[in-house]
Amino acid sequence: MGLSFSYNRVDQETVSLLKSAIGKNNVSSDEEKLLSYSHDEVPSSAYEGTHMAELLVFPETAGHVSEIMKIASAKRIPVTPRGAGTGLSGGALPAFGGIVMSFEKMNRIIELDEKNLTITVEPGVVTSEISKMAAAHDLLYAGDPCSGDASFIGGNIAENAGGNKVVKYGATGAQVLALEVVLADGTITWFGGKRRKDVTGLDFTHLMAGSEGTLAIITKAVLKLLPLPRHSADLLAAFPDPETAIAFVPQIIKKGGIVPASIEFMDQKALSLAEKYLNYPVPAGEAGAALIIQLEGNDPEILEKEYEKIGNLSKENGAYEVYVADTRTTKERIWQVRKAIPEATSFFYSRYTKEDLVVPTDRVPDLLGKIRDICSAANLEWVTYGHAGDGNMHCTVIGPPADNWHEVLRGVQEKIYSAVIEMGGTLSGEHGIGFKRKSDMKLFLDRKQIELIKRVKLAFDPDNILNPGKMVEWDQ
Amino acid sequence: MGLSFSYNRVDQETVSLLKSAIGKNNVSSDEEKLLSYSHDEVPSSAYEGTHMAELLVFPETAGHVSEIMKIASAKRIPVTPRGAGTGLSGGALPAFGGIVMSFEKMNRIIELDEKNLTITVEPGVVTSEISKMAAAHDLLYAGDPCSGDASFIGGNIAENAGGNKVVKYGATGAQVLALEVVLADGTITWFGGKRRKDVTGLDFTHLMAGSEGTLAIITKAVLKLLPLPRHSADLLAAFPDPETAIAFVPQIIKKGGIVPASIEFMDQKALSLAEKYLNYPVPAGEAGAALIIQLEGNDPEILEKEYEKIGNLSKENGAYEVYVADTRTTKERIWQVRKAIPEATSFFYSRYTKEDLVVPTDRVPDLLGKIRDICSAANLEWVTYGHAGDGNMHCTVIGPPADNWHEVLRGVQEKIYSAVIEMGGTLSGEHGIGFKRKSDMKLFLDRKQIELIKRVKLAFDPDNILNPGKMVEWDQ
Repeated sequence: MGLSFSYNRVDQETVSLLKSAIGKNNVSSDEEKLLSYSHDEVPSSAYEGTHMAELLVFPETAGHVSEIMKIASAKRIPVTPRGAGTGLSGGALPAFGGIVMSFEKMNRIIELDEKNLTITVEPGVVTSEISKMAAAHDLLYAGDPCSGDASFIGGNIAENAGGNKVVKYGATGAQVLALEVVLADGTITWFGGKRRKDVTGLDFTHLMAGSEGTLAIITKAVLKLLPLPRHSADLLAAFPDPETAIAFVPQIIKKGGIVPASIEFMDQKALSLAEKYLNYPVPAGEAGAALIIQLEGNDPEILEKEYEKIGNLSKENGAYEVYVADTRTTKERIWQVRKAIPEATSFFYSRYTKEDLVVPTDRVPDLLGKIRDICSAANLEWVTYGHAGDGNMHCTVIGPPADNWHEVLRGVQEKIYSAVIEMGGTLSGEHGIGFKRKSDMKLFLDRKQIELIKRVKLAFDPDNILNPGKMVEWDQ
Repeated sequence: MGLSFSYNRVDQETVSLLKSAIGKNNVSSDEEKLLSYSHDEVPSSAYEGTHMAELLVFPETAGHVSEIMKIASAKRIPVTPRGAGTGLSGGALPAFGGIVMSFEKMNRIIELDEKNLTITVEPGVVTSEISKMAAAHDLLYAGDPCSGDASFIGGNIAENAGGNKVVKYGATGAQVLALEVVLADGTITWFGGKRRKDVTGLDFTHLMAGSEGTLAIITKAVLKLLPLPRHSADLLAAFPDPETAIAFVPQIIKKGGIVPASIEFMDQKALSLAEKYLNYPVPAGEAGAALIIQLEGNDPEILEKEYEKIGNLSKENGAYEVYVADTRTTKERIWQVRKAIPEATSFFYSRYTKEDLVVPTDRVPDLLGKIRDICSAANLEWVTYGHAGDGNMHCTVIGPPADNWHEVLRGVQEKIYSAVIEMGGTLSGEHGIGFKRKSDMKLFLDRKQIELIKRVKLAFDPDNILNPGKMVEWDQ
């Protein structure tokens, strides 16, 4: 199903129409701004200068978004919605130029409804603000991407962001009850409602989660809240090697009989990189590998029983030391290590490929073994860490100091992908496909699956003006 | 977006092709069978004889399903997939005749994977068999429709069946990790995988949940399992009136700080109908209204603390008596009451409209009030019961002993629907739209939402041969 689409450039008339529709202050063509709004956190050298926004718009209301889309669809100009720009797949890259729509001015928490346990927000609210507002009412917002202190909730939903608590609560999509959206033609409508159940029509609410801004634009979200667990504890279990650590993961749920809020994995390279970056000794900094296991509960005595049980289980399964953190300071000390890894990697290395692989949880040990074998054979360094509880591993292969590093990395990547496919895994667990991974989709999905993605995209957006050039390749 | 489709009848050539493709024993045109496979549990008088299957097929493999679809799509013959026929929306009704595809021969549990906590099943497995198999391995399958002892898992997924545990675990769709499907043209493919996270493309796995057999045919499902809670207790709290009972529901989660597995509601009419049908005195049989609250846990002492807490909270909030069931016998005694209500209604009354309304949980009291006022004004009896924890109320309005009962019921229905819309509620929480409710969709969804349903349906099934005549009206 090869198709091509042609787009028009943003001309002066379009700029004038937009300014009068949403106000002069909400439209910008400042060159410096255009540059900084034309990429996300994928190392920019990969795309630099190749895909530039022609115009930025900053809507303040769903009405503004609707006006913009009416103009853009009449003029056939591509529109790329953008959250905080913390994406890791080039999802907010304006692949065909056109308009970049930033949601930084739509940043209100509209309502916290204690009776229905929901929170209604605009797409530009920073994720951690939602968690804080919920916590102030003894409630939990369970979405928890690692970028939560910076990312916008609209982007979280568009990417179906994962993070540290998926093993217990599911990813961002599982937190969404309803979305106000603007369609490509400017129609404002709702998918879902403030309802815990709904089979009235197809489930477009959850189809939107992970649709990467290609189907419709989110202008409001109604999210689920839960009672806030009153207590939590984090265990950091140090293991002699990755194999022993990862083999313990399925035992935690099966033998422990409980589903922890988080089960995170870090290999020795990840631990030592984090230590070097933080520049102070971190717990388990010397370990061959480590797991962070987060437990939650309402009763401190029961919680203590549970973490003792899991601690003992860890030791029976090869951990040589277990640190328990049950105060704010000790917890932060543990999580700082985990959270520093991505930053440390980009601080110390300029050439790397950061993967977002996901495999059935019991295949994580095999995946780690394969990565070790493939990288060793190519004489490359690598870091593995991630969400062991849900099989989502962030493998980062470090580029060699050679002219052909891109080719070398690509070769390694292809070998790793073959192994992942053989294990029943796939390309991305939470970072998305976007621009970065679209050419690899054909390795993981069959022809018909890709065709269905295109057909559904066109059912929503017949002219392909909403975030075009993402998720799939159209010319094939 | 008014469209019409034309279909061909099943001719002798089609029958021969099907027999040679899937075997003579898997094709039937027995008249009696045709009749019994041409309706579900919606009282058959509503459709009797109006929509008849022309041929029944009983595939044994996905390959068979693929062969059937290749023949049906080449011949442009409608195909209606059918589970156990326990549906409550006419979803399995062959609206345009053609082929009815029954999954009773695809009833194998293929694998229980203890390492990945998944179970892989064919669509014709009875839901309770899945729960039993999981429980035998100390695992929980959390899907729990009230019809679980008869319904097939394929139908549960197609309808996104709810049931008694949605408040804690979500509906059937939330249990699904992956689906093998056959598309309208006979292609066999997979959506999702044995993966806890996946953003590789659009989320068709969950779009299938609640799609009522209109997008693709499910031939295998990989479902999530959880650790089996080791203990549970059921509280039956008797209240003087429905208002007091229902006002307590939001307090259970908010003040109790825990999410029960179930929160079920029954009004006095429901309780007394169940008692009359069961023909022995039931607990709280005389109450103005009652709630069943199910709590789960791993530690019996903690569970006891919790049910004491919720029991005391009930009494502080107007319950005049609380029965605690923590043995198998006492639990069954409580749940028998709740489970007898639908059967009792159809046993004692032949004319009724069984609604599946869902509203934001805090509006349930208003909904009950409205139903009371509307039914009283029309001099009609009514029964209300259902899943109070998720706002899904099964209101059953009893038909009057008059010739124009259908008109009278319709008038009442329309008034109730207006009230539901005003409350932010919708038409169906778990029974589906199917044939029964499709003409009411335009009251609840706007023109654009309905158009999107049609466009996505055609993206999957361009000739509209998969379960046509369901969910939306095409001629409008």
